[in-house]
Amino acid sequence: MTKVFATVPRITPRTLKGFRDYLPATMIPRERLIETARRVYRSYGFSPIDTPALEYLEVLQGKGGEDTDRQLYQFVDHGGRAVGLRFDLTVPLARFAAQHASVLGMPLRRYHIATVWRGENTQRGRYREFLQCDFDTIGTTSLVADIETALVIHDLLVALGLSDFTISINNRNVLNGLLAKVGLAERATAVLRALDKLGKIGPEQVAREMERQAGATPAQAADILAMCAVRGTADEVLAQLERLVAGSEQGGAGVEGLRQVCSGIRAAGVPEQRVKLDVSIARGLDYYTGTVFETLLDRLPTIGSVCSGGRYDNLAGLFTKEALPGVGASLGLDRLLAAMEELGLLESVATPAQVLLTYFATEHLPTYLQMAAQLRAAGLRVELYPEPKRLGQQLKYADSRGFRVALIAGDDEVARRVCQVKDLRTSTSQEAELGAPLVRAIEAILADDQPACP
Amino acid sequence: MTKVFATVPRITPRTLKGFRDYLPATMIPRERLIETARRVYRSYGFSPIDTPALEYLEVLQGKGGEDTDRQLYQFVDHGGRAVGLRFDLTVPLARFAAQHASVLGMPLRRYHIATVWRGENTQRGRYREFLQCDFDTIGTTSLVADIETALVIHDLLVALGLSDFTISINNRNVLNGLLAKVGLAERATAVLRALDKLGKIGPEQVAREMERQAGATPAQAADILAMCAVRGTADEVLAQLERLVAGSEQGGAGVEGLRQVCSGIRAAGVPEQRVKLDVSIARGLDYYTGTVFETLLDRLPTIGSVCSGGRYDNLAGLFTKEALPGVGASLGLDRLLAAMEELGLLESVATPAQVLLTYFATEHLPTYLQMAAQLRAAGLRVELYPEPKRLGQQLKYADSRGFRVALIAGDDEVARRVCQVKDLRTSTSQEAELGAPLVRAIEAILADDQPACP
Repeated sequence: MTKVFATVPRITPRTLKGFRDYLPATMIPRERLIETARRVYRSYGFSPIDTPALEYLEVLQGKGGEDTDRQLYQFVDHGGRAVGLRFDLTVPLARFAAQHASVLGMPLRRYHIATVWRGENTQRGRYREFLQCDFDTIGTTSLVADIETALVIHDLLVALGLSDFTISINNRNVLNGLLAKVGLAERATAVLRALDKLGKIGPEQVAREMERQAGATPAQAADILAMCAVRGTADEVLAQLERLVAGSEQGGAGVEGLRQVCSGIRAAGVPEQRVKLDVSIARGLDYYTGTVFETLLDRLPTIGSVCSGGRYDNLAGLFTKEALPGVGASLGLDRLLAAMEELGLLESVATPAQVLLTYFATEHLPTYLQMAAQLRAAGLRVELYPEPKRLGQQLKYADSRGFRVALIAGDDEVARRVCQVKDLRTSTSQEAELGAPLVRAIEAILADDQPACP
Repeated sequence: MTKVFATVPRITPRTLKGFRDYLPATMIPRERLIETARRVYRSYGFSPIDTPALEYLEVLQGKGGEDTDRQLYQFVDHGGRAVGLRFDLTVPLARFAAQHASVLGMPLRRYHIATVWRGENTQRGRYREFLQCDFDTIGTTSLVADIETALVIHDLLVALGLSDFTISINNRNVLNGLLAKVGLAERATAVLRALDKLGKIGPEQVAREMERQAGATPAQAADILAMCAVRGTADEVLAQLERLVAGSEQGGAGVEGLRQVCSGIRAAGVPEQRVKLDVSIARGLDYYTGTVFETLLDRLPTIGSVCSGGRYDNLAGLFTKEALPGVGASLGLDRLLAAMEELGLLESVATPAQVLLTYFATEHLPTYLQMAAQLRAAGLRVELYPEPKRLGQQLKYADSRGFRVALIAGDDEVARRVCQVKDLRTSTSQEAELGAPLVRAIEAILADDQPACP
């Protein structure tokens, strides 16, 4: 910073279109969600990694289709290099895995929580900067990794306080086996793209799109849609699918994969109603080659999948001749946050501290500093109001920020080594001796609360 | 991802010059440090915020001097806007505070942990992308905020396991009062810039620079340097400074500020030897107007200050007519990490999980999945090896990743509902019954360890 501050004309403070500031009331639950995700990822042995926001343009370009290329933030840097801001965490992972495979060894379980950028059309309510929370297991074709992908999704949602959700699972080989049987194997990509819209546009529109985009006959489209309508318990669905793919080796392998994934998830103790086999889940991306996952919140299905992913054969074929198979998923953090807000699962606070220590008189500052230090040493989060303003003003501040407890120590209290403990939700007060009794009084008030921070 | 993967020629996987990947062994302690910082910031009531990586160029340009302007990553976006990547978190905070002051209310305590970019000369061992961890209290001139800034620095280093460090404190008004007395008030900026190099280049070079850059006489330079050499306990230094600035109102106010900050820090219980009054600390930036802080590690002083900051009168003068005074500091995360590594304070692990559950035979997979679920429910971090490879290979993997415990359950163990618990540090094994006894056996082994994750 230089003196330029005083002389230059004023600049309007504003953010770019499609970008946003996170104020404390939004950022506190966001950090909580991120930390919960980290804790769950780690509990399965996933390790954190990070990669640069900027990559060589050639690393990013042509990896996500025409739309993604058009949306890339790209420029020429100081050294004349063509560079771009990453638009997802999968392409950087592919580059990373190819570059470091020999040091890292396989299998590699990594999570990556980082910002990505896309110059998208903001008309659709999309942001141009957002956080992705990906986790992947690379270097193994074992279905154990598929099973644990579903378990991570499950544990994550439970850890966030969500209980009504459904993890939908499919295996691309089942669908491809089915397609081969009806003679549409060559047009699988176009069929899958159409099928992926089933939840959004319904079977009739999907059938029309299959005919138009994939050249399917109305009878073929009807066959595929009928197959996707298979419903029932996992065992019932598996039995029906087995009959439908009979004769197709690929289809049979897909059903067997689904059976193993289902039984593994069950062995780990996941309640049956949280897992659904659903052949209509296609995940639109033709690089998935096995299991695919989607996760819907039962009370807010319209918000779409909050955690999706699947298995792929070859993550980094563009960067290395080594085949790196893997499986993973991506948590839709902002979507999940919006859903939790709508479901009333987020506390509305603008401070991570639980306790506001009011400031009554300058001469008592040493006592306040000592009190705050003791409470923090006991694990409490305490803000000391910085100025001896009117008490009413300080309490109004405490209310507006969402503090749970206010402490008041005036001349009389300081002399007697006590303090008023005000529960700001019930507006009741009690007196407590400084030291351990004060800690206990505060903890008793906080005991009922959901933590605002982990 | 599209089929393009199979057809395009291979791309060399590499990162841009000055940028780096974080592999698990580096990222695990880095995340631990970040989380410790968050926990300490929150314990004082600092709230998290975030701002976009990209800002309008006019927000960033001209705010950090010529070097910073030259190093700015800037380009024109899809909408024809001139934009840039943030080079620090102070300019975004100024823009943020000006934009949201009316919603946020004051005082505002915020922390911001985020990536910044500077196209610096990498010859100096600097990176072009790095993390900043800033915390500031805005909207108050009260010294309580200065005191708590020092307390946060103190608690943070203690929480990281560091005990030998010194927080050096100065007040710019003391120095400016002194400068006025020797007739160099007008040339304060140039004098301070020279003085800021005292630790690096020594008094003789500083004197020469004062003469050359600030037009000081050799006598004036000698006077200033003599004043900066004042040493002793806090009370001794304060007494000497009081005499030196006698007659200067500004100098007197500075000494009084130092006295209050010192006594507040003491009241909060910080050991005296960890705080030093040091008039030579100038922090080179002429926008600091009161208290300034630097923090040296006693066992590694050459690494430089790991946490620095100070008080400013007007954070956001470029964006708003509202005066926003404040005080804050910035944690030098990467420097601190390097120091902790050198001091042997970092555990060398490449996995956040403590336990590797080996995979002996496919038919026991349901048992392994159940065991893993039970251990995770008990709060342990467990990786299940995904394939039934040779046990030796799995144990080698466990060693190379830095797991602490390996669990082995073959046919015999599964039949008896027990498991071998191998301490990988001592290479000793014991048997434990599945369920609670197994949890206890693992916890006993882990009890001595420093946690790799908080």
